[in-house]
Amino acid sequence: MALPPAIILVEPQLPENIGMAARAMANFGLPELRLVAPREGWPHEGARSPAAGATAILDAAAAFASTAEAVGDLAYVVATTARSRGQMKRVLTPWDAMAELRSRSLAGQRTAILFGRERTGLSNDDVSVADAILTFPVDPAFTSLNLAAAVLLAGYEWRRSGEDVGAVPAAPSPAPRAALLGLFAQLEGELDAVGYYPAGKRPSMTRNMRDMLLRLAPTEQDVRTWRGVLRALSGSRPRRKG
Amino acid sequence: MALPPAIILVEPQLPENIGMAARAMANFGLPELRLVAPREGWPHEGARSPAAGATAILDAAAAFASTAEAVGDLAYVVATTARSRGQMKRVLTPWDAMAELRSRSLAGQRTAILFGRERTGLSNDDVSVADAILTFPVDPAFTSLNLAAAVLLAGYEWRRSGEDVGAVPAAPSPAPRAALLGLFAQLEGELDAVGYYPAGKRPSMTRNMRDMLLRLAPTEQDVRTWRGVLRALSGSRPRRKG
Repeated sequence: MALPPAIILVEPQLPENIGMAARAMANFGLPELRLVAPREGWPHEGARSPAAGATAILDAAAAFASTAEAVGDLAYVVATTARSRGQMKRVLTPWDAMAELRSRSLAGQRTAILFGRERTGLSNDDVSVADAILTFPVDPAFTSLNLAAAVLLAGYEWRRSGEDVGAVPAAPSPAPRAALLGLFAQLEGELDAVGYYPAGKRPSMTRNMRDMLLRLAPTEQDVRTWRGVLRALSGSRPRRKG
Repeated sequence: MALPPAIILVEPQLPENIGMAARAMANFGLPELRLVAPREGWPHEGARSPAAGATAILDAAAAFASTAEAVGDLAYVVATTARSRGQMKRVLTPWDAMAELRSRSLAGQRTAILFGRERTGLSNDDVSVADAILTFPVDPAFTSLNLAAAVLLAGYEWRRSGEDVGAVPAAPSPAPRAALLGLFAQLEGELDAVGYYPAGKRPSMTRNMRDMLLRLAPTEQDVRTWRGVLRALSGSRPRRKG
């Protein structure tokens, strides 16, 4: 039995929406909820009644200070967003995303689906920690999907994908997200040290580079290799003063 | 293009739920709402705000005194219910139900999906006017699905069953192989210059690194970026004599 993906809500504003999301998760057998900086704090009484009995999910939910911390132990993350954002990430239908998540889960990899804020969705920085983008096939004339509705659809499609999945060999396990973030920090630190970034360009250049590295889906061994390469390349260079 | 099934809500109690159902319909392009004896009367102001802009659906919604009247002009009706009820009706998965509805719609038949009251669902009399039963594959341990959630899932599955969804954007074109070989040569030259490779290990380490970069499937722009990164990292380092 595949361990279902965790559901991660980034900065949910209303406890009511957290409760409704938990209810939707319970409908389709998703047990693990993670919250990034919920606006009203956590735990919160206001989530309980909308959960309609799915309180075990609320009781077990973990809160994190940042998206990066919430995904630290995960091997594969899908971000839900309606916009393609011009990022170099695979854009998946819900069914293709669930097939990917399921084959990784069956191989023992920890996975998650990321959902954004009620009004503004996920920021580019949130999306930058993800391996792929999931877009729901809503009518382009009416795309406004509330938070619990998006979680419900993901849960439904997860469960639906369980009916007809054969033994698809999973891709090799990517490094835990924390190892990748360590590589990012080392690379960006080295590039800062040599004055690589033109003024004002650092955020977008960093995002593009992270996207490329995520597409590479490096294993833990790969990350060690690249960190060694970076150390070798910068080792004999005189340090600039920060 | 097939005319989508009408959504029929039987004795909905709260106008808010009618509004949320309309919103879910709009998400997936279902235009026609029918109401059977809504408890608070119809039209009702309380439905408008929860519809989140899907007010055209509310304005066009028709109210009927009984389920029999609401289905009078229809050729094929599916009833949503969690219970099998021992009726001699086909019980369909959502996807089989939508395939059936879609093929009938394409043949010009008027169809609908029937949803029950918030607490008690459809009565046996309601179900008796339907041709088949649709059951959502919820977790048996947590079957409580609210009205708008059930409508949302039906709408999603209707749209998913269509042919006009899931146009997957093509993957970006990878860099010409010559550009990649140029990147390999630059990287390996820099690593030679800093004495990175242990004795005898260069061939296998080089192969592994090239494999990783190939898996990355970099675009031509990606290759330019990484060559710039390499130049920046090695630029201020004193050269070894070859």
